[in-house]
Amino acid sequence: MKKKVCVFIGSRANYSSIKAVMKKLKEADDFELMTVVGASALLDRYGTAVKVIENDGFEVFSKIHIIVEGETPTTMAKSTGLCIMEAATVFDNLKPDYVLVVGDRFEILGVATAAAYMNIPVIHTMGGEISGSIDESVRHVVTKLSHIHFPATELSAHRIMMMGEPKESIHAVGCPRIDEVKEILGKKIDVNNSVLSCGVGSKVNLSKPFLLVLFHPVTTEYGKGTQQVQAIIDVIDKMEMQTIMLWPNVDAGSEDVARGIRGWRELSRLKNFHLFKNLPLDIFIALMDKCACIVGNSSSAIREGAYIGVPAVNVGIRQQGRERGKNVTDVEFSKEEIHCAIEKSIRHGKHERDTLYGDGYAAEKIINILRHKKVNVQKQFVDYFEHSSICPEVSKERGAVD
Amino acid sequence: MKKKVCVFIGSRANYSSIKAVMKKLKEADDFELMTVVGASALLDRYGTAVKVIENDGFEVFSKIHIIVEGETPTTMAKSTGLCIMEAATVFDNLKPDYVLVVGDRFEILGVATAAAYMNIPVIHTMGGEISGSIDESVRHVVTKLSHIHFPATELSAHRIMMMGEPKESIHAVGCPRIDEVKEILGKKIDVNNSVLSCGVGSKVNLSKPFLLVLFHPVTTEYGKGTQQVQAIIDVIDKMEMQTIMLWPNVDAGSEDVARGIRGWRELSRLKNFHLFKNLPLDIFIALMDKCACIVGNSSSAIREGAYIGVPAVNVGIRQQGRERGKNVTDVEFSKEEIHCAIEKSIRHGKHERDTLYGDGYAAEKIINILRHKKVNVQKQFVDYFEHSSICPEVSKERGAVD
Amino acid sequence: MKKKVCVFIGSRANYSSIKAVMKKLKEADDFELMTVVGASALLDRYGTAVKVIENDGFEVFSKIHIIVEGETPTTMAKSTGLCIMEAATVFDNLKPDYVLVVGDRFEILGVATAAAYMNIPVIHTMGGEISGSIDESVRHVVTKLSHIHFPATELSAHRIMMMGEPKESIHAVGCPRIDEVKEILGKKIDVNNSVLSCGVGSKVNLSKPFLLVLFHPVTTEYGKGTQQVQAIIDVIDKMEMQTIMLWPNVDAGSEDVARGIRGWRELSRLKNFHLFKNLPLDIFIALMDKCACIVGNSSSAIREGAYIGVPAVNVGIRQQGRERGKNVTDVEFSKEEIHCAIEKSIRHGKHERDTLYGDGYAAEKIINILRHKKVNVQKQFVDYFEHSSICPEVSKERGAVD
Amino acid sequence: MKKKVCVFIGSRANYSSIKAVMKKLKEADDFELMTVVGASALLDRYGTAVKVIENDGFEVFSKIHIIVEGETPTTMAKSTGLCIMEAATVFDNLKPDYVLVVGDRFEILGVATAAAYMNIPVIHTMGGEISGSIDESVRHVVTKLSHIHFPATELSAHRIMMMGEPKESIHAVGCPRIDEVKEILGKKIDVNNSVLSCGVGSKVNLSKPFLLVLFHPVTTEYGKGTQQVQAIIDVIDKMEMQTIMLWPNVDAGSEDVARGIRGWRELSRLKNFHLFKNLPLDIFIALMDKCACIVGNSSSAIREGAYIGVPAVNVGIRQQGRERGKNVTDVEFSKEEIHCAIEKSIRHGKHERDTLYGDGYAAEKIINILRHKKVNVQKQFVDYFEHSSICPEVSKERGAVD
Repeated sequence: MKKKVCVFIGSRANYSSIKAVMKKLKEADDFELMTVVGASALLDRYGTAVKVIENDGFEVFSKIHIIVEGETPTTMAKSTGLCIMEAATVFDNLKPDYVLVVGDRFEILGVATAAAYMNIPVIHTMGGEISGSIDESVRHVVTKLSHIHFPATELSAHRIMMMGEPKESIHAVGCPRIDEVKEILGKKIDVNNSVLSCGVGSKVNLSKPFLLVLFHPVTTEYGKGTQQVQAIIDVIDKMEMQTIMLWPNVDAGSEDVARGIRGWRELSRLKNFHLFKNLPLDIFIALMDKCACIVGNSSSAIREGAYIGVPAVNVGIRQQGRERGKNVTDVEFSKEEIHCAIEKSIRHGKHERDTLYGDGYAAEKIINILRHKKVNVQKQFVDYFEHSSICPEVSKERGAVD
Repeated sequence: MKKKVCVFIGSRANYSSIKAVMKKLKEADDFELMTVVGASALLDRYGTAVKVIENDGFEVFSKIHIIVEGETPTTMAKSTGLCIMEAATVFDNLKPDYVLVVGDRFEILGVATAAAYMNIPVIHTMGGEISGSIDESVRHVVTKLSHIHFPATELSAHRIMMMGEPKESIHAVGCPRIDEVKEILGKKIDVNNSVLSCGVGSKVNLSKPFLLVLFHPVTTEYGKGTQQVQAIIDVIDKMEMQTIMLWPNVDAGSEDVARGIRGWRELSRLKNFHLFKNLPLDIFIALMDKCACIVGNSSSAIREGAYIGVPAVNVGIRQQGRERGKNVTDVEFSKEEIHCAIEKSIRHGKHERDTLYGDGYAAEKIINILRHKKVNVQKQFVDYFEHSSICPEVSKERGAVD
Repeated sequence: MKKKVCVFIGSRANYSSIKAVMKKLKEADDFELMTVVGASALLDRYGTAVKVIENDGFEVFSKIHIIVEGETPTTMAKSTGLCIMEAATVFDNLKPDYVLVVGDRFEILGVATAAAYMNIPVIHTMGGEISGSIDESVRHVVTKLSHIHFPATELSAHRIMMMGEPKESIHAVGCPRIDEVKEILGKKIDVNNSVLSCGVGSKVNLSKPFLLVLFHPVTTEYGKGTQQVQAIIDVIDKMEMQTIMLWPNVDAGSEDVARGIRGWRELSRLKNFHLFKNLPLDIFIALMDKCACIVGNSSSAIREGAYIGVPAVNVGIRQQGRERGKNVTDVEFSKEEIHCAIEKSIRHGKHERDTLYGDGYAAEKIINILRHKKVNVQKQFVDYFEHSSICPEVSKERGAVD
Repeated sequence: MKKKVCVFIGSRANYSSIKAVMKKLKEADDFELMTVVGASALLDRYGTAVKVIENDGFEVFSKIHIIVEGETPTTMAKSTGLCIMEAATVFDNLKPDYVLVVGDRFEILGVATAAAYMNIPVIHTMGGEISGSIDESVRHVVTKLSHIHFPATELSAHRIMMMGEPKESIHAVGCPRIDEVKEILGKKIDVNNSVLSCGVGSKVNLSKPFLLVLFHPVTTEYGKGTQQVQAIIDVIDKMEMQTIMLWPNVDAGSEDVARGIRGWRELSRLKNFHLFKNLPLDIFIALMDKCACIVGNSSSAIREGAYIGVPAVNVGIRQQGRERGKNVTDVEFSKEEIHCAIEKSIRHGKHERDTLYGDGYAAEKIINILRHKKVNVQKQFVDYFEHSSICPEVSKERGAVD
C-alpha cells in the first residue's frame, strides 16, 4: 500500500524549497503525493504560487485560505489559529500517513500543530537553523512537533539533536532547493530583457550590471519596515545602479515594507528599476547567477547564494545566526555600511561554489530514507548528556530563599 | 509603572500549579495580575475552576471559550486554533508586559503562540520535564516559544538549556504547587466524611483505608481509554477497597474514559466508591495525605506525591520519563501487576518527604527574579557545545548518494 | 447529469424531519445525495445521531464539529461563526448544486449563510412557522437566505410569501417528518419494557399509563432553565405518574435544564422514571402513540402530535405562535395549571388525526418539484401589495421634526 | 443610567451612512456611544476608515480583524463566520444595551447574528430596500434579526412590515447619510485641484467637466468583474472625459475589479484620470455636486444622488430594484448604452432636489425614538393579513399526490 505524504505549501519560497522532493514523490510507485496549498501561496498579491504549482503538473488536493487580513502581529497570530482549524479539517479528510512541512514561516507552526495533535507523523525540512524574526522560534517549535528531521546542514542536525530529538530521526541531507538550483544552473538559461514584460517599473537592461533586492519585514521589529526598506532604497538610488526587486512576503509588517516601496515608486526617484511580485524559480536563479550583487535580508542570498557563489549584502538581524559562506557580507541599517558593502561585493565578483546547504541530491536521499522509516508517533525527549557533569550552573537557584 | 503579568488558567490543575504565584503577584506593589481563564476551566463538566478562582478573590479579566466539543484529536487541534484566535484578541485588549503559562496542556500551546507572535514575552513554569501523550511535545514547544523559564527541577532546567535556551533565562525554582501543598499540610486539615456531600456514588468511610484514583486519557493512545480505565476498576473492585475517584480532564479521549466509568457505575459493581468532578485543592491534598495509596496516571501522584510521601501506583505510559521519587511504583496495564503494586504500596505506607519538585518557596523566588528581569523579545538559539567534538554521528548522511 | 443535493443534519430532530426526503433522494437516479452531519448530531451527550444515520445506510460525506462548549449565548454565537467557516470548506470541496437545510436551530443559519454567500441555491423545509426562542428569528432568516421553500402548512407558505419570496419558489407540501410518522404507525410497533434497557433511571412499566416529557431551554429566557424544568418535575412527582423523559438539546441554557434534571435524580425523588439521551424515531413515535399525555415544550407534541392525536400539555413560550391542533393545551409555568392540564388531557384521551402538518406524502412532492425546478441564485424581494393602499400607518414619521 | 449603544462600522460607506447618528449619540447625556470598527474599515488597501473615525473624535472601543484574504465567495463566507466569533467576544466584554448596524454588507450579517443570539436588541438602518448582489439577501436577513428598524423610505418601511415585523418597531426616518450631505452642501466647499495630491494617476483639472466613477463587484456575478469594469473604462477612454475613480470595496470579486483597473493603468491608456482609495465624505459629496455625471453601480449615485440631483448612469444589476429618483439612467453592460446614457446625462445637467432618501433630519428623529423605546428581545412574526382572503395560490400543492 502506498504511503500518503501530504506536503503543505504556504508560500512561493516554500514551494521552491521542496519541489525537488515533490517530483520524486510523484514519480515513486510506493508513495502518494497529496499537495495542500494555503496562506500567501493562494493570494494574488503574493504572486499566486498555486498557479505555478498546478502548471508544474502537481494536483492540488486542498486549498486553505487562512490569512486574516491586516498584517499586524495580532492578525498573524489569528491567521495561525485559523490555519490549525483548516488544516485539521483537511487532514481529517485526507488521512495522510505523513505531513511534510518546510521551514519556518508562521503558518507552518499551525500545520505542524494540527498534524501532531492528530497523531500524524510530521516530517520537517530546514530545521535546526538560526535566524532572527519570529521565524527563529517557529523553526524550533516545528522541530519539537516533528517526528523526522531533514536539516540542510550538519550544524543544524547537531542542534536538533541537542534539542532532545532522537539521533535516528535526524538526517542531514542538504536542502532540496539546492537540487533545483543545480538543475537550473545546468540549463544555462539566457535570462534577457524579455523577462521584464511581467512586473512593473521603468527600463532595466539585463545585459548590463544590476542589483537584485529582496527585503522582508522582521516581525520582532514590527513597525520599522518602511524606514528600513527606504534606507536600502536611498543607497541604491544614489549609486544609480540598475535594480530588480521583489515584493515582501506576508509577515506582520509586510504592509510597512510595501508602503516604503510604493512611496518611492510614486516619487519616481529611481530610474532603472523593475519590481516583481513573484518570479519563476528558474528565472530567479538565473538572475541570482547573473546579478552583480544581491542585497536585502532574504535567506536565498545565503542558502542558494552559497552554491551559486553570488556576492551578497545582508542587512539587519533577520538572518542573524544563520550559517553562511564567504559570499555574504553582513551590515547594519547604516547607509554608509550598505553602500560600502555593495561596492566591495561587486568588485569581488563571483565566489567559489560552496555546498554548505546541499550538494544537489537532497530529494533522492529523503525519499530513500522515508521508504524504510519506522516512526513512533509518541515522541520522547532524549537526554544525551549527564546533567551533573556538564552544567552545574543551572542548579544554583534551588534553596536560595530559605 | 507596574508590570502587567497576564496569567492564563486553562484547567483546575493549571490553577493549583500557579496559585501561589498569583497570590504573590496580587500582593506586590510593582506588578498587576491579569487573570485570564479559558478551556476546561470554564466548563461545568470539568468542575468550573473559574468559580473557585473568583471565590479565592482573583479578578478574572477575560474568559475565553475555546473547546470545540467532540474530544477527538481533530477537535483538540481545532480547539487549539480557536485558542490562538481568542487569546490574540485578549492580549490585543489587555496589552500585558508578560504572559505566564503553566505546564503542557494542549491549549497552552495556543496561548503561548499568540503571545510570542505578538511580541509579548512568555514566562513558562513546569518546562523541561518528560512525559507521554501529546503533552510531551506541547511542553517543549512552549519552551521554544518562551522567554523566561521556571522549571521545577534541576534536570528539567538542564534540558531547557540543552534545547538552546540562554542560561540566564532559566531558573530552577521548584514547582509553585508545592508551595500550596506545604501550606495546606501545615493546616493539618481533618478531612472527614462531610466532604462526601459533594460528588456522586455510594458510601465511603474516610476514617478507614481508601484508594485515591486519577486516570486521564493518553492522546497518543486515542481510543483505548475505556478499556484502560476498566482494567484499573476491575482490580479495585476485586480488592474491595474503598475508593475516591476524579473524572478525567478534557483531552482527546476523555469521553472514552468517562464512558468506562459510567458503564461501571450503571452496573453498580463497586460498593464503596465515590466520584468527584473536582475537589478544592486543600481537600485533594488532605486526601492524598490520608489515602492508603494513589492509583492511576496523574502527575500529581509523582509531583506533590514526592513531597507528601504518598505511596503511588502509576499505570501506563502517560508519565513516562518524568522524574520520580521512591514513592512511585510503575506498572503496565496488567491487572496482576496493578494488583500487586497496590498491595505492596499499601503495605509500605508513607515515604520520607522528597523535595525533588520543590521546597515550598517557588513563588517567592519567581517574583524576585521577575522583578529584576530584562527580556529580549527576539529569541536566539544558543549553541552550548561544539558540533565537531561531540556528535560526529549525525554527519554521515552527507554525500551518501553519489 | 445528476443534481448533487447536500443535506445538512445538525441534530437528531433534524434527521427525523428530513429522513423521508433523504430516502427518496438516495433512491432517485437523477439526484446524488450528499449527507453532511454536524453540531449536536455528532456529540455523544446528545445521542450521536450520526451513528443512527450511518446505520440507516446513508453515507456521511463530511462531519463538521462546530459546537464551542459552554452553552451560553456567547458560545452559541461562536458556534454559529465556526459553523459558517467549516461549512464553507465543505461546500468548496463537495460543490453541491443545492444545499438543503431543515428548520430553525442556530447552526442552520450558519449553513445557509455559507451556501448563499457561495452562490449555491438553498432549499429550506419547515419555514414560515412561528415559535418563541431564537429559533423564531433563525427560521425567518433562513427563509430570506433560501431559494426554494417547502413549508409544512398553508399558513406558513403564506407568511413566506408575505416576506417577499416569489410565489413560484414556495411549495406547501407538509412536513416530511409526518411521512415517517405515517410509516411507523403503519408498522404497529409493540413498544414494551425492553426499550428500557437503554437510558438510566428507575423502573417503568409501559403496559400501564405513563407520561412522555420533553423540555428544552428557551434561549431568550436564558438562565431560567433549572427552575422551569423543576416546576414540571414537581408536579409529576406529586402526581406519582410513571414518566419517560428525554435530555434537552444543545441550545444555550441546556446545561441549566440538565442540572435541574440531575439535581432531581440525585435526590431520588421520582420513583417511576426513566431518562433517555435519545430514542430511535420509531420507538419515540410508538411511545407518543401509547403515552397517556406528552408534557413539555417540544414541537413534536404539536407537529406529529396533531397527526397522532396524542394529548399534549405545552408549557411556556417556546412554541408561542406555532399552529396547533386540538390535541394541545397551553399553560404557563404555574404548577397548578400544569397539574390541571395534565389531568384533563389524560381524561380526554386520544384525539382525531389532524393533517395540519402533513398527510404523509411530503417527500414525494418535494422530489417531484426539485426535479423540474429552475433557480435564479440572485434573489429579489417581491412586492405583492401596493404600499399606498394598504399601510399608510408607517409613513407618519416623515417630516416629524422640522 | 446611560443606554450603551454599540455602533459597528465595517466600511467607509458604513461610516458616512451613520456618522450623523454617532454625533448625536456622543453629544447626548443619556446615551453612551461605543464604536466598534472592523472588516475593510481597518484595512489600508480600502482606505483605513478607522483613522478617519478617530480623527473625527470618536473613541474606538474595539477593532476586529475579520477579513480572510482571498476575495472569493468561500472567503467571504469564512470572513462572516470569523466576524460572528469576534463580535461575540466584543459584545461579551462591552455588554451594550443595543447594537446598531447599518445597511447590507456581508459582515453586517455576522454582527447582527452575534448580537441577536446574545439577546442584545439590534437596531438596523437602511433596511427594506431592494438591490442585487448578496447584499439583497443580507439586508432582509438583518431585518429579520433586528428589533428596531430605521428604514430610509416609506416603501422600505412597508416592506419591513410585510416581512412580519411589528409596526411599532418600524420608523421611516430617512437615511442619516443625507443629514451629512445636507450639512456638507451647506458649507459650499470649493473642491479644487489640491485634492488630487492624494491618490494616484495622471492630471485632472477639476475646473473643467469630469466624470465620477464608482464600480463594485457583484457577488452573484462572481468572476465577471474584470470584464465589466473594463467595458466602462473603454467607453470613458474613447469619450476622452476627465475621470475621478474610487477603488472597489472588499466583496468577493473585488480583486477582479482591481485587476481590471490595474491592467488599464499599466497600459497608460487613459490620459486624464485620477484614482482614490478613499475620500473624505465632504470631498466626495463636493465632487458629486460638481461632477458632470456619476457612473458605475454604487448606491451613492441613487441615494445621495437624489438629494444632490447629480445625473447618474447606473450600470448592471447591482442596484436592481432600489428606489430611484429622476437623476438615474439605468443601462446594461453595453458600451453603446453606457456611452449614450453618459452623453444624455451630461446634456441634461443637474436635477431638482428629491428627498426620497431623507430630508436631512434622520439622526435627530432616531435619537428621539430610541430615547423612549421599549424593546422585547423575543421577536415574533406579525401576521398582518388573513391568509385565506389574500393568497389562495400557495395552497394548491396540498394533496397533489394521493
